[in-house]
Amino acid sequence: MTSQSRGDGLDWPKLFATRAERMKASEIRELLKLLDQPDVISFAGGIPDPALFPAQAFSDALAQSLTGDQAGQALQYSVSEGYLPLRQWIAARMGSLGVKCTADNIVITTGSQQALDFLGKLFLSPGDTALVGWPTYLGALQAFNAYEPRYDRLNPMGNRLPADFKAQAEAAGGRVKFAYLSGDFANPTGETVTREARERVLDLAEALDIPVIEDAAYQSLRYEGEEVPPILALDLMRHGGDIEKTRTLYCGSFSKTLAPGLRVGWVCGATPVIGKLVLTKQAADLHSSTLNQMAIHKVASADFAGQVARIKQAYQSRRDTMLKALDAHMPDGVSWTHPDGGMFVWITLPEKFDGADLLAECLKSERVAFVPGKAFFADGSGANTIRLSFSRMAEKDIAEGIARLGRVVKRKAG
Amino acid sequence: MTSQSRGDGLDWPKLFATRAERMKASEIRELLKLLDQPDVISFAGGIPDPALFPAQAFSDALAQSLTGDQAGQALQYSVSEGYLPLRQWIAARMGSLGVKCTADNIVITTGSQQALDFLGKLFLSPGDTALVGWPTYLGALQAFNAYEPRYDRLNPMGNRLPADFKAQAEAAGGRVKFAYLSGDFANPTGETVTREARERVLDLAEALDIPVIEDAAYQSLRYEGEEVPPILALDLMRHGGDIEKTRTLYCGSFSKTLAPGLRVGWVCGATPVIGKLVLTKQAADLHSSTLNQMAIHKVASADFAGQVARIKQAYQSRRDTMLKALDAHMPDGVSWTHPDGGMFVWITLPEKFDGADLLAECLKSERVAFVPGKAFFADGSGANTIRLSFSRMAEKDIAEGIARLGRVVKRKAG
Repeated sequence: MTSQSRGDGLDWPKLFATRAERMKASEIRELLKLLDQPDVISFAGGIPDPALFPAQAFSDALAQSLTGDQAGQALQYSVSEGYLPLRQWIAARMGSLGVKCTADNIVITTGSQQALDFLGKLFLSPGDTALVGWPTYLGALQAFNAYEPRYDRLNPMGNRLPADFKAQAEAAGGRVKFAYLSGDFANPTGETVTREARERVLDLAEALDIPVIEDAAYQSLRYEGEEVPPILALDLMRHGGDIEKTRTLYCGSFSKTLAPGLRVGWVCGATPVIGKLVLTKQAADLHSSTLNQMAIHKVASADFAGQVARIKQAYQSRRDTMLKALDAHMPDGVSWTHPDGGMFVWITLPEKFDGADLLAECLKSERVAFVPGKAFFADGSGANTIRLSFSRMAEKDIAEGIARLGRVVKRKAG
Repeated sequence: MTSQSRGDGLDWPKLFATRAERMKASEIRELLKLLDQPDVISFAGGIPDPALFPAQAFSDALAQSLTGDQAGQALQYSVSEGYLPLRQWIAARMGSLGVKCTADNIVITTGSQQALDFLGKLFLSPGDTALVGWPTYLGALQAFNAYEPRYDRLNPMGNRLPADFKAQAEAAGGRVKFAYLSGDFANPTGETVTREARERVLDLAEALDIPVIEDAAYQSLRYEGEEVPPILALDLMRHGGDIEKTRTLYCGSFSKTLAPGLRVGWVCGATPVIGKLVLTKQAADLHSSTLNQMAIHKVASADFAGQVARIKQAYQSRRDTMLKALDAHMPDGVSWTHPDGGMFVWITLPEKFDGADLLAECLKSERVAFVPGKAFFADGSGANTIRLSFSRMAEKDIAEGIARLGRVVKRKAG
C-alpha cells in the first residue's frame, strides 16, 4: 500500500512506468527505495511546509471547541452542507474576491479534491467529454477518471469553435459536460490564466451551455503581480452580480493556507448545484468532520490574513531561489515558467528527454527527485516536461538540488 | 438547505412525501417547522447521546497530537490508506472479533458511510443488482443509488435459488454485484442476523461469486445475549483463517462508540480489494483527516472498552424503558422488535396505517416524532412501519413519548 500513496497524491510506480520504454517492476522497486533515502533532495510532492502550520492556533481552537456546550456539537453528527459559521466566513471571503454570495451558496467538502470527485459524479456519464488543460492537475484527472469520461483540450486562447467541441463529443457518444481549469499558479505549471483567457473560457462555456469548474486551490498564494478576478467573479459581472445566474463552480481549499491535514475545502456557486452537491455529500460521507470545521473557522476568523502573509513570505523567497538557480545551472534549450505564486515551477526539456527516464538517472547519480510531467497530460504527451515544487524546502537545498539536476540535464543533453 | 439535511442523514421532505396520498409542499413546510419545536419528543434521528462523548479525552489527545514533532504530521497531507498506528489498532481489534488480519487489510474511511459509497463505486454499474434487506439502512440505499443499481431482496432464510437471483439480474441487463447487510442490531430494525443466517448469506455469495458487504456500525453495542461472530470471521473459518481468501468486506465505525463528528470508519478485507479502495480514496478526497485519526487512535488505545461500557449501560437502560412503555401503551395488532443492542426499535402497525400520515398526526396533536419506515424499503413497501430511536433521550421523555404515540395509534386504530 505504501508505494501507492506516499501522502503526496502521486502513484509513483505508475509515474515511473510512463517512461517511453517501460521499466521493469524490479527497477521501479529500486527507484522507490531511493526516493526514501534521507540524502535525496526532493522537488516532488506538492505539499506545504509543516513548519508554517499554525499548530498552536489550532490547538487552542480545538480545545475551545471541546469545552462546555460546544463539545457536544463538535463531536456529533452535523448537517451535510457544513458548519454554518464557517460557510458564513467563506461567503464573506468570497465577497472580498468579488463574489457576492451567502452561506447558501457554499457547501463544505473534504478538501477541494472531494469537490472534484463530486462534480465528476454529478456531471459525467461514461463517454461524456470533460475539457481540461494539457497539462492539468493530476488529482482532477484521477477524480474524473472514476466516471469514465473522454477528455478534450481546453486551450482558452485557441481558435477552435464551440461547434467543433460539440461535434467531437457527440461523435464519441456523449456530450461536453464541463470545462475544468485552475486559474492561479496552477498545479503543475505554476502559470496564471489571464483575465482575457478567463473571459474566453466563459464564452466557450456559454456557447456550449456547460458549467466551468474553477479550481482555486492556490488562489491566496500570490507573491507578485496584480490579482486576476476569479472566473466566478467575471461570471457574476456578466449577470448583474446575481450568483444564481452563474455557471461557474469555484472550488476553494484551506489546505494551502491553514493546513491540509484537516481536510476542509468548499464549493461556491448557484444554489441549485450547491443543493445537489449537498445531497451528494450526504450519500457519500454524511458530512466533513464537525470538529475540524469549527477549528478552521476559529483559526481563519482570528488571523487568516496574517497566516497567509507568513506563508507567502517564505514561499516567495524559495521561488526566487529556485528561479535564480535555474538561471545559473540549466543549459540552453531548457525553458521554465516564472510563477507569480503557488508552489510549482514547470520545466520543458528538449524533445528527446523523457521525464521518467531523467528521474531514474537523477535519483541514481545525483540524489535529486521531481515529478515527470507526462502524468499531467490527459493525452499522454508531455514526456519532456517535469514539475518542481519549491514550497517545502530550505533555500540551500533548493540551490543545491537545482545544481544537481542541472548537471544531469547537461550530461544527457550533451 | 437546512430542510434537506438536519444532521440525521434523513431527507425529511421526501420522508413526508412517501405518504400514500402525497402531501402538498405547504403542508410539508408546516410539518418541518413542527419538527423543530422544543416541546416535540423525537424518536427520529439515529444519533448518539452527546453527553456520553469522551470530550475531555479527545481534547487531551488533540493537544498531544499538536505538540512538538507530531504537529507537522497531524496537520499535513497523509497516506490514503490511513494512519498506520490506527490501522494497527483496528487490526488488533478485528483479531479480538475472530478476524486475524494486519494493517494491510484495513483502509480508513470518512465514517462507514464513505465505505458504502466507495464499495458502490467499485462494484456497481447502472443496471447491476445489489442484494439488500427489505428494509435496510437508508444511507446504504442513498450511497448505492448514485451508481444506479437495481435492488433485489436479500432474505437469508428464504428459499430462492442462486440461479434465480442470477437470471433476474441478467434479465434486467446487469449482474448481481454484492450482498449488503448489517448483522448486529441493524438500522432500522434493531434485529440481529443469526449465525445460521450469516452462513446462508455466505453460501449464496459463494454460489453467485459476489462479495458480502458487512455493515458493522453497531457491532460493539450489545446489551444482552451472546455475540454472533462477524460474517467476515465466519468467512475466515471457511478458508483456514486466511483473510486473503475471503469475500466479505467488513465496514466498521467509531461513530457509535467514540464520536461521529470526527468521521472515522474503516473497511477490513482481503488486500486486493483494500488496495482498490485506497486508490478510490486517493481520487475521492486524498485521505481522511490526519489529526482526527491520531486523536481516535489515542482515545481508543487509552480506554475503548471503558468508553463502550459507559455507553452500553446508558443505552440499555433506555431500551428497557422504551420496551416497557410500548408494552404499556400500544394496542393489540401492533408489534415491535426486541433488540439485543444498538439504538432502534422497529414497529409494525396494522396494514391500514401509513407511517408518514401517522407522523403528521403525531406532530400536530401530540408533539412526538419518529421516522416513517417506507424509506428503508428498496421496493417502496413498508408503509405501515416506523422506526424509533432510544439512544439520545432521557428515560422520562421516552416513557412520555411512547404514551403520546400510543394515544394516537389507539385513536387511529379504533
